[in-house]
Amino acid sequence: MKIGFVGLGRMGTAIAGNLLKAGHEVSVWNRSADKAEPLVAAGATLATSPAEAAAGGIVMSMLADDHAVEAVVFGEGGILSARSQPIHVSLSTIGLRFAERLSGAHAEAGGALVSAPVFGRPAAAEAAQLFIAAAGAPDALARCQPLFDAIGQKTFILGDSAPMANLMKLCGNFLIGSVIEGMAEAMTLGQRGGIPKAKMLEVLTGSLFDAPIYRVYGDIIARDAYSPAGFTAPLGLKDMNLVSEAANDMRVPMPVLAVVRNHVLSLIAREGEEVDWSALARMVEGEAGI
Amino acid sequence: MKIGFVGLGRMGTAIAGNLLKAGHEVSVWNRSADKAEPLVAAGATLATSPAEAAAGGIVMSMLADDHAVEAVVFGEGGILSARSQPIHVSLSTIGLRFAERLSGAHAEAGGALVSAPVFGRPAAAEAAQLFIAAAGAPDALARCQPLFDAIGQKTFILGDSAPMANLMKLCGNFLIGSVIEGMAEAMTLGQRGGIPKAKMLEVLTGSLFDAPIYRVYGDIIARDAYSPAGFTAPLGLKDMNLVSEAANDMRVPMPVLAVVRNHVLSLIAREGEEVDWSALARMVEGEAGI
Amino acid sequence: MKIGFVGLGRMGTAIAGNLLKAGHEVSVWNRSADKAEPLVAAGATLATSPAEAAAGGIVMSMLADDHAVEAVVFGEGGILSARSQPIHVSLSTIGLRFAERLSGAHAEAGGALVSAPVFGRPAAAEAAQLFIAAAGAPDALARCQPLFDAIGQKTFILGDSAPMANLMKLCGNFLIGSVIEGMAEAMTLGQRGGIPKAKMLEVLTGSLFDAPIYRVYGDIIARDAYSPAGFTAPLGLKDMNLVSEAANDMRVPMPVLAVVRNHVLSLIAREGEEVDWSALARMVEGEAGI
Amino acid sequence: MKIGFVGLGRMGTAIAGNLLKAGHEVSVWNRSADKAEPLVAAGATLATSPAEAAAGGIVMSMLADDHAVEAVVFGEGGILSARSQPIHVSLSTIGLRFAERLSGAHAEAGGALVSAPVFGRPAAAEAAQLFIAAAGAPDALARCQPLFDAIGQKTFILGDSAPMANLMKLCGNFLIGSVIEGMAEAMTLGQRGGIPKAKMLEVLTGSLFDAPIYRVYGDIIARDAYSPAGFTAPLGLKDMNLVSEAANDMRVPMPVLAVVRNHVLSLIAREGEEVDWSALARMVEGEAGI
Repeated sequence: MKIGFVGLGRMGTAIAGNLLKAGHEVSVWNRSADKAEPLVAAGATLATSPAEAAAGGIVMSMLADDHAVEAVVFGEGGILSARSQPIHVSLSTIGLRFAERLSGAHAEAGGALVSAPVFGRPAAAEAAQLFIAAAGAPDALARCQPLFDAIGQKTFILGDSAPMANLMKLCGNFLIGSVIEGMAEAMTLGQRGGIPKAKMLEVLTGSLFDAPIYRVYGDIIARDAYSPAGFTAPLGLKDMNLVSEAANDMRVPMPVLAVVRNHVLSLIAREGEEVDWSALARMVEGEAGI
Repeated sequence: MKIGFVGLGRMGTAIAGNLLKAGHEVSVWNRSADKAEPLVAAGATLATSPAEAAAGGIVMSMLADDHAVEAVVFGEGGILSARSQPIHVSLSTIGLRFAERLSGAHAEAGGALVSAPVFGRPAAAEAAQLFIAAAGAPDALARCQPLFDAIGQKTFILGDSAPMANLMKLCGNFLIGSVIEGMAEAMTLGQRGGIPKAKMLEVLTGSLFDAPIYRVYGDIIARDAYSPAGFTAPLGLKDMNLVSEAANDMRVPMPVLAVVRNHVLSLIAREGEEVDWSALARMVEGEAGI
Repeated sequence: MKIGFVGLGRMGTAIAGNLLKAGHEVSVWNRSADKAEPLVAAGATLATSPAEAAAGGIVMSMLADDHAVEAVVFGEGGILSARSQPIHVSLSTIGLRFAERLSGAHAEAGGALVSAPVFGRPAAAEAAQLFIAAAGAPDALARCQPLFDAIGQKTFILGDSAPMANLMKLCGNFLIGSVIEGMAEAMTLGQRGGIPKAKMLEVLTGSLFDAPIYRVYGDIIARDAYSPAGFTAPLGLKDMNLVSEAANDMRVPMPVLAVVRNHVLSLIAREGEEVDWSALARMVEGEAGI
Repeated sequence: MKIGFVGLGRMGTAIAGNLLKAGHEVSVWNRSADKAEPLVAAGATLATSPAEAAAGGIVMSMLADDHAVEAVVFGEGGILSARSQPIHVSLSTIGLRFAERLSGAHAEAGGALVSAPVFGRPAAAEAAQLFIAAAGAPDALARCQPLFDAIGQKTFILGDSAPMANLMKLCGNFLIGSVIEGMAEAMTLGQRGGIPKAKMLEVLTGSLFDAPIYRVYGDIIARDAYSPAGFTAPLGLKDMNLVSEAANDMRVPMPVLAVVRNHVLSLIAREGEEVDWSALARMVEGEAGI
């Protein structure tokens, strides 16, 4: 299958690599072209614009935020300027307002948006073990399924309106934040009372909390292993702000979201922008004098 | 093995029943004796006091709160009045201050406290599938292990100071509350945006949140199945207050605890005392106009 | 003094009226011209565009939000299209990001921005009893002072960078929200314990809390007098969102802001958009079962 | 008038001194008698027990917490052991549960409780400028009025049930905490944006927030003048816990209370027990990286 891929950060490079391994013809584009080199060495073609990458009729994008997606879609040489309009499979975590605008723009131009944001940190992306929340027109989704199979372990269909998948992703990322915050508070209380973090984690993941998200982030918190970051604090803040925007628009009070968001703000204020967002656990510890 | 059992509520009856099934000789006591009938019919002996139940050298208790434990230990005919002091295996969720007092009193009297609070709702107790967090003197723990094996699926040893197990239990119950609250907020946002609760639960438990606690409580919330209650709102409030007491004594700010506790308060204020504590999700929905 | 006035809502009409009363020549403009009638009847001239209103060299604006200000400044016939660039005295509560953009645009065009947001509800505006937080170039501020004297009781100078006054206004509005929320919580506890709201208010304003803001909002809450609204819930939400935006940009966690904001969201979700924002007190009461 | 006075801390000494100045015969008692010396030098009599101090028929107490009041009332030589039972005028900030027990015990013994907690820091006590919230039987209140006039500037009558005054005091102290927290958040945002704390305070107290509580605490925060403490962090924590206990018993969610309480916990965890409770503002600043 001919497929374009736009956005070659750590996640995008891993995902595009798995598409290549699965035998697809991949045409890649990135704002700074040097990031494409490893993929080109592995058999990918280098496109000169997002529009060119989209020439095969289907193009995936994996970018940092709304602005980056806006640039590769609406900008010069962007996907909307392609001669024939493709299916755009957007893997990025974007806001709901922007997802709706994007969906409308693609439909109007004669293409289609499939939103397919992914759950998983870089290691999961490399192992093709992502979870994919997908939504869009049924025929477009059907065409994409082989691609999803090449990059993830499971695909969930959220319906035929693309932004539903973005909403699911925002809810999921909020819940990840709530898990980090919850564990941080519990482990801080435990520590102050004499239970080491690793011991508490063993009990939790050995009993009712035996889920990947507790194991992955629990281990990071228990070992204070916040750098190198798998997902930086500013990215975490961006996501919590997108959830907050959606909650605002839908009139949903989310007090735990506010707690998580404030701890990420504090983390950036105190430790800068390079640390993993789960280091918000260090804010929780610090507030307890640890 | 000869074993006493004090406290025959829903959890206690199920647990004592499993001790009987495993072939132990069980002497039971309950404040209102009629609750003992099914167990006596199944082969248990009826003791006339907690002290008599403790005559075999080891006595388990499963009670609603600190006051109830205080009564069966320090009260007339209480465990401390037994001729020879037993190992007291306390399964109840009690406060840290009281656990320390209890531990000291048993030691002083020549007996021993093993704290062994359990994770699991009534269905898990009946199926002998509880998780047990245990702490106490190593020899006492060793004597108790066959009993733990008869009532649960796994035992975690928290150390030789009994209150450590109580602290672990409080941290765990707080985390359960944080999971209910987190899911409630996420599902409310999802609902307002068009994702049914059951759909969101399928994605969560099918991916990063594949843990018993999300499945059990997610199902309750998705089906609004808050009664009959497995764990009532006042019991939930009691536990959150015990966590809050411990957090206060150890100077640990826990903002998510405050959110959970306030929603349980609101639940009791609006819907009374009979509903399951996870109905706090209905408060979250109500605040968003659902 | 010749002065333009743009934005004739309830606040703007009252303020422009006081400028007329003080003897100034006022040229007014409003998107829907009919709102200008009472002022024209009182001696004002009707301008055909914001730019025309600005012809006298100084133009005040009092508008609902950033978008409205953007339209009258950057839009067709907007202030920036005036032949000679005036001092623009912006009385509106606008965001910090937008204030900075506005300040830059006026400077670049050869005019100047004076930010002069006001504290006070409509009754205070009518009585020329507003408090004014002003910032901008010293000479521009000096020219504006007679105008401030005509509409308010006191002017505070925040410095020569216009956005400082907008920041002060945002901080002040947040504090008003915190006062409403704080009183709502205290009065709810009092009510549940038998102290009528009016009694509590008497004690508060008769002792340590003897400030206009407690008297004004305390009276509204004590009498449940939320409509007609002096300041609607969506305006309150808009302001709390602007504070939140500033707090985000400056990395300042503000947990009380989150509480206020969530209660306003809940208010809109449950009671719609017409009610006064201080009806958030009803949310606090409702959560306690009142 | 013959009056006993029990509890000679900083507040009690100032108040008893004003009773002396007003011409009353004061019999004083304190757990450590040396603290009574300045008052004895000024004309007071030294009693050998609270009961002896109460011999004149009316006894005031000003103590740190429930336990201290319990000791001087129920303990050996306590007020309840006086030959003829007096009116006990309790000025301390105590919990609602305890106030109800105290009220019942005095009534049963043939005496009476007047609750008359005071608002004001030590400087106000010395200047006889306290505000008094009083409740109790009307005739008892009438007898006490001259005493209130000698120590305060204003008395508010909350009704004939003594604990109502204690509830009013708890609500008031919560509101003081909410003012400190609110100002801390606003001033932190201002600081980060370039408005000095003192400048913001000038605007606030010069406009809508012109109340003693903003002036007193605003000045402390603006000057970082947290020691010597007028009211230490552990006392602040005690009060917030008493409010929390009342809110729990009456099922009133109070999210701002939780924020204040958590910041005081953090303050004690990080800076110890000697600092003024308003130094919670330093926690707010610290979380923003200041």
